[in-house]
Amino acid sequence: MKEKLFKKICIFGVGLIGGSIGMAIKKNGLANEVIGVGRDIERLRKAVLAGAVDTVTTDYTAEVKDADLIILSMHINSSLEAAKKIAPFLKKDAVVTDVGSTKELFCKKMQKVLPNGIHFVGAHPIAGLERQGVDVANSELFNGAVCVITKTSKTNKNALLKVKKLWNKVGADVVFCSPSQHDKLVALTSHLPHIAAVSLVNVLGKTDSIDRDLKLVVGNGFRDTTRIASSSPEMWQEICATNKKNILTSLSRFRKSLDRLYKLIAESDSKKLTKEFEKAQSIRKRII
Amino acid sequence: MKEKLFKKICIFGVGLIGGSIGMAIKKNGLANEVIGVGRDIERLRKAVLAGAVDTVTTDYTAEVKDADLIILSMHINSSLEAAKKIAPFLKKDAVVTDVGSTKELFCKKMQKVLPNGIHFVGAHPIAGLERQGVDVANSELFNGAVCVITKTSKTNKNALLKVKKLWNKVGADVVFCSPSQHDKLVALTSHLPHIAAVSLVNVLGKTDSIDRDLKLVVGNGFRDTTRIASSSPEMWQEICATNKKNILTSLSRFRKSLDRLYKLIAESDSKKLTKEFEKAQSIRKRII
Repeated sequence: MKEKLFKKICIFGVGLIGGSIGMAIKKNGLANEVIGVGRDIERLRKAVLAGAVDTVTTDYTAEVKDADLIILSMHINSSLEAAKKIAPFLKKDAVVTDVGSTKELFCKKMQKVLPNGIHFVGAHPIAGLERQGVDVANSELFNGAVCVITKTSKTNKNALLKVKKLWNKVGADVVFCSPSQHDKLVALTSHLPHIAAVSLVNVLGKTDSIDRDLKLVVGNGFRDTTRIASSSPEMWQEICATNKKNILTSLSRFRKSLDRLYKLIAESDSKKLTKEFEKAQSIRKRII
Repeated sequence: MKEKLFKKICIFGVGLIGGSIGMAIKKNGLANEVIGVGRDIERLRKAVLAGAVDTVTTDYTAEVKDADLIILSMHINSSLEAAKKIAPFLKKDAVVTDVGSTKELFCKKMQKVLPNGIHFVGAHPIAGLERQGVDVANSELFNGAVCVITKTSKTNKNALLKVKKLWNKVGADVVFCSPSQHDKLVALTSHLPHIAAVSLVNVLGKTDSIDRDLKLVVGNGFRDTTRIASSSPEMWQEICATNKKNILTSLSRFRKSLDRLYKLIAESDSKKLTKEFEKAQSIRKRII
């Protein structure tokens, strides 16, 4: 029998991302055993039924002793708590990875939490939906997606390669990046758009009296622009807390750009306004 | 033979919207004759080949004499110019309608431009793509979409009903609204999201050095949030010029909401921040 990439994988948190990883690992035969770990036994059972994991447990320490890969895919703070709990039980050379949306703070904390001989590799698959839970998980979620893997001077090379291999095998393109560079980039491409979408929706909230009419004229533009505003509030609060500096910098730049457009509209400067719109069109073409 | 809704329809501008209307009119047999009018003979010929119109002309006045419906589907200023040119040639009781994204100013100007006995009915189908031209037009574009028809004290009832019937027959749900109420609503649901999308993209433009990396981490969230930023700059400049007051009001409210989020993030007020995210989630659920 060909040796698998991992013998035993424990996935902490089997929602959309954790569940999809489990499904993709099982589908591609990347481990002998995939264990789902979590707090809610009902949700864990759903993950077994969905085919995301082989077995499940709510006992954080029981199954990790002989695991060679731990995937933390809960919310940021919960993942950190779980790491603290299991740290003393992990075997030598076990690899710990995550799927969190912010990396700098988390990587630093993991460095402190995990003892020597346990290797942490931060990862962030850029694939998500505004819906949550194992019900919407699927084995193809990462197919064609980008997964950022963070690399520092302390990252163990062997562990890095194994985590890279895992993401490649489930169909993702891997990009290496420092944790701080990652956080700067996603502040602009993910966190800022999210905050803008939340404000675009919340601005409508003050117009209760025209609710019915608003509903009628909402088009695809609004639907798409604000889709991400339906994501998990708890998760986004944690993202803001753990990438505060970069998000505030991005927000300041965004406000400056809005102020410029406000001024051009107020002054009816059609030439410069058209130029701003053309600029957006060409930058978007370059980036997407 | 059953009488058609219109004998002769002239469509001014056969791009995405004008072309799609032409296709839908022909598919549903709503007129004996559909004529495409425009400035560029090459583009007009493409519209014939695409099956959007029966015949075409660049002579603005020639075909309108016996038309019972004129659909203005060019950019706002061009539609207005066309209306001025053809006004003296229209037959009594001809109906003129449009598809523009702003209504108050346009309806007022049309009232002045058109002589007595010619009936203007403003319309705005909430259906569009970020791409343009007859190449992406299709007869089903308005199927299931909402079309706002504006109604004032001066609107001719018979003309209103005929335009309503046209939009219903091509699959759209018709909503009646005053021109000013329309402009207030779309400032919030369409114009503000567009300006936000433009700024979200333009903010990235200042980070030339990390262009390659940005490209790598751009996910579906950014793609969707900024999709509309790829729309026609010229069209959007006109929208801003003709709905200035409402857009500036919406922008002010948007900035206030962003300032609030900025403050909560800066102060690490996780409770209130979560509440803002929850509010967005629930408003979006209510509206979409």
